[in-house]
Amino acid sequence: MNAMNDARAPRTALCHYTTDAVYYGDADLVRDLLGQASFIDVFMKQTFGRVPSAGERRIVDAVLVTLMEHGMTPSAIATRMIYASSPENLQAGVAAGLLAVASRFVGTMEPAAQLLGRIAASEDAAAQAARVAQDYRARREAVPGFGHHLHKPDDPRAIALLALAREVGTYGPYCEALGHLAAAVDVAAGRHITINATGAIAALLGDIGIPTALMRGFAVLSRAAGLISHIAEEQRDPSGRFIWSLVDEAMTDIPSVG
Amino acid sequence: MNAMNDARAPRTALCHYTTDAVYYGDADLVRDLLGQASFIDVFMKQTFGRVPSAGERRIVDAVLVTLMEHGMTPSAIATRMIYASSPENLQAGVAAGLLAVASRFVGTMEPAAQLLGRIAASEDAAAQAARVAQDYRARREAVPGFGHHLHKPDDPRAIALLALAREVGTYGPYCEALGHLAAAVDVAAGRHITINATGAIAALLGDIGIPTALMRGFAVLSRAAGLISHIAEEQRDPSGRFIWSLVDEAMTDIPSVG
Amino acid sequence: MNAMNDARAPRTALCHYTTDAVYYGDADLVRDLLGQASFIDVFMKQTFGRVPSAGERRIVDAVLVTLMEHGMTPSAIATRMIYASSPENLQAGVAAGLLAVASRFVGTMEPAAQLLGRIAASEDAAAQAARVAQDYRARREAVPGFGHHLHKPDDPRAIALLALAREVGTYGPYCEALGHLAAAVDVAAGRHITINATGAIAALLGDIGIPTALMRGFAVLSRAAGLISHIAEEQRDPSGRFIWSLVDEAMTDIPSVG
Amino acid sequence: MNAMNDARAPRTALCHYTTDAVYYGDADLVRDLLGQASFIDVFMKQTFGRVPSAGERRIVDAVLVTLMEHGMTPSAIATRMIYASSPENLQAGVAAGLLAVASRFVGTMEPAAQLLGRIAASEDAAAQAARVAQDYRARREAVPGFGHHLHKPDDPRAIALLALAREVGTYGPYCEALGHLAAAVDVAAGRHITINATGAIAALLGDIGIPTALMRGFAVLSRAAGLISHIAEEQRDPSGRFIWSLVDEAMTDIPSVG
Repeated sequence: MNAMNDARAPRTALCHYTTDAVYYGDADLVRDLLGQASFIDVFMKQTFGRVPSAGERRIVDAVLVTLMEHGMTPSAIATRMIYASSPENLQAGVAAGLLAVASRFVGTMEPAAQLLGRIAASEDAAAQAARVAQDYRARREAVPGFGHHLHKPDDPRAIALLALAREVGTYGPYCEALGHLAAAVDVAAGRHITINATGAIAALLGDIGIPTALMRGFAVLSRAAGLISHIAEEQRDPSGRFIWSLVDEAMTDIPSVG
Repeated sequence: MNAMNDARAPRTALCHYTTDAVYYGDADLVRDLLGQASFIDVFMKQTFGRVPSAGERRIVDAVLVTLMEHGMTPSAIATRMIYASSPENLQAGVAAGLLAVASRFVGTMEPAAQLLGRIAASEDAAAQAARVAQDYRARREAVPGFGHHLHKPDDPRAIALLALAREVGTYGPYCEALGHLAAAVDVAAGRHITINATGAIAALLGDIGIPTALMRGFAVLSRAAGLISHIAEEQRDPSGRFIWSLVDEAMTDIPSVG
Repeated sequence: MNAMNDARAPRTALCHYTTDAVYYGDADLVRDLLGQASFIDVFMKQTFGRVPSAGERRIVDAVLVTLMEHGMTPSAIATRMIYASSPENLQAGVAAGLLAVASRFVGTMEPAAQLLGRIAASEDAAAQAARVAQDYRARREAVPGFGHHLHKPDDPRAIALLALAREVGTYGPYCEALGHLAAAVDVAAGRHITINATGAIAALLGDIGIPTALMRGFAVLSRAAGLISHIAEEQRDPSGRFIWSLVDEAMTDIPSVG
Repeated sequence: MNAMNDARAPRTALCHYTTDAVYYGDADLVRDLLGQASFIDVFMKQTFGRVPSAGERRIVDAVLVTLMEHGMTPSAIATRMIYASSPENLQAGVAAGLLAVASRFVGTMEPAAQLLGRIAASEDAAAQAARVAQDYRARREAVPGFGHHLHKPDDPRAIALLALAREVGTYGPYCEALGHLAAAVDVAAGRHITINATGAIAALLGDIGIPTALMRGFAVLSRAAGLISHIAEEQRDPSGRFIWSLVDEAMTDIPSVG
């Protein structure tokens, strides 16, 4: 294969240059975007192909704000450890912390969205939701998007996010599927189970047309912002050596006879 | 040392929790932020301690939009290579690409900002600018923030960014220092040298109070957004195997006798 | 919970210090290891709790040598792109490339090892192997550890690795299970399917007692070495700008009217 | 430029393939290396172009063993935080921890090697060493390769490494330069300053011909091995949630009125 001659070679339409202009897609960066378009609108256009409506933008902002910050989590600790070791490389601290945006924390957003999509697409959404809830119950697994170790009986973020979707008019099949599933989960469990923020975000993003495979991108973008805040705080009040000592003292096993 | 009892232990004020609320600083996430505050305003508040004015926000948006996308750069190629190898881990693709936000590309933003700060702080800014330009000329080094391999005689992004700063009223000592330095660089070189986008961004961010050590954070946040766009395009039209073949065929040295 | 007082707190036994000695486990680094123990033996002791026998060490060396280098793969391209962007940070180039050691390339080692373990543990290994092969065939999926796009009918590395296991005497239940599975895969497919290097490595490592969940560690260690070789070559003959231009020219879509 | 036709295109000589063989350089992987060559010898050949002598190999092993493990350092903590968040991605945990192999820890190896190289190349090594020591003293900076917060008056690892170089016969101009510099540092300080392990390693590697720009590669390879040990321990006795709680409780600032 000669890759250069392959008419089917993949192309990028994200950006091209001339000597006196830069284009993002077919928009002239200087003439059409700088000073006029917001960062989030350009991000949405480049990633999803269209600028969000005013209501959708409020959903996007709310989702990004919710995912930004969770305190001294493993992600933030990793960022601070690497930044303290490599303060000339702010980007390395952020990159390390982003690697925590994986299965254990936001990873449930994708299976939650898939479940909601299946429920939304079925003829009898309530019946499909009941089957899903019973299946998970039978396997003794948590339903993705449900449960929280701290926020009980309800996660205030999930309630606020769903209320916002109603307010701005994007509440649609995914949010409705979440309602059906929440009712079915409570029945299957015999008690009330929290809809967590991740579950609500999956529903809101599904209803504004975000593909499941890109939902994690919102978590990554938002955590990048949050981790930069941690580095800013680290610059003012360094914690690197403190955390190192704290963990080392708590965990290093000194044999009684060295 | 018992770290737990150390009154001087570093603290984080970025986030704390109760069972029914989440706080970002002293703001209640649900009551004060969700549906009301934009992602960028919350990021700025968490990182720099205050919400930007409307004019400052246009500067921040313009800077982030400018840094977002530069086509098939090493950063984007690294992201696509890792995403193609690990499509279950969008975050790993972004993390890999962010590691390119280093000395060679945006790294000149920090020395440019330091130069501008020194010129702005001197009693005779024009004379200080002349000394800086002559020093670099004598060492045959490019002045940080100046020169571009493609955009000549002027980088349209730099011109637009500086015009925006005048328009919104943030044009201040850093931008003025850049003007002095540009004049001095042309005199020292005996010809016109481009102010590049990085130089203009350093000036604009300096004038809205961003510390030099955090300027790279804007590049990291913006590139995170841009790299997510590349992954979105990669999902629609995969390039991983194409790039692999292209590079392998061009570079692998097959000895004539194996 | 006060973590400091928790008797059940996890401990590390990997390393502790006094003012005049460093201990790796209960070995004195200076007295017991330096100048006496090889890197690989210390790695194996620290990771798996025992020094390998001479035969096992040949297996470990052979596995690490096999996994080290595969030319201009996505992993190597990512490393070179990041190193070219951040030459002050060799570690960032290696870290980026290691993120490619994931599902698409070595990721099949783990499911292959799980299959082999199940077959080895069954009363009738041949019958169990036949069931596995038929199941994958029915789902039209490749059996982990089988198939190669280039090395047909046989992967010379797999043959050599299995021969080595016989030679050094570690050929055991995992290698035998691989033999059963290979026979069953050929029957199910109605033609000969290659045992690939990853499949053979899974068998060899299983037979020397490496837990499945740590097998990827060998790929990570070995690729770290290989990626350092790529950086060494990059220092002598830089390819960063070449690859950038090559990919950019091949993929950037320039509209006919700018 | 058409990159494909460029005769000056960079080439890789590290690896090439045919359908029935894999070559590392001009060595046939199966025929020449598997079962015969050790991992370290192949790494050295691929990276530096030649197999080490038996004495050099003891130096390489000793250096790699020394750099492998330092307990619950920022590097190990970052690895454990990411692995706990992303246990399906061992490689991400290692990649995160490797990003700590930067300026603060092993970063002094490179300036130490440069100093030793300059001293070794000067006509009067003792006089050059004295000038270097006085310069650093005058600037009140630590000389790279000297000083340790714990190991005083001497770092037992440095002493053992230098003794090993004498024993195996690689003690040469770099080690001699370190001797001159150590004497000069003590004179300039008016007291004995420790030669640390990093300083000794720089000298040993310099004397076996390792270029300064690749010395960090040894730290990266060795830390990759050490971080895999931490993940192995984490699999047996998980610390992720413990460290998270420990740090969160110690650092989260709960305002008296929520």
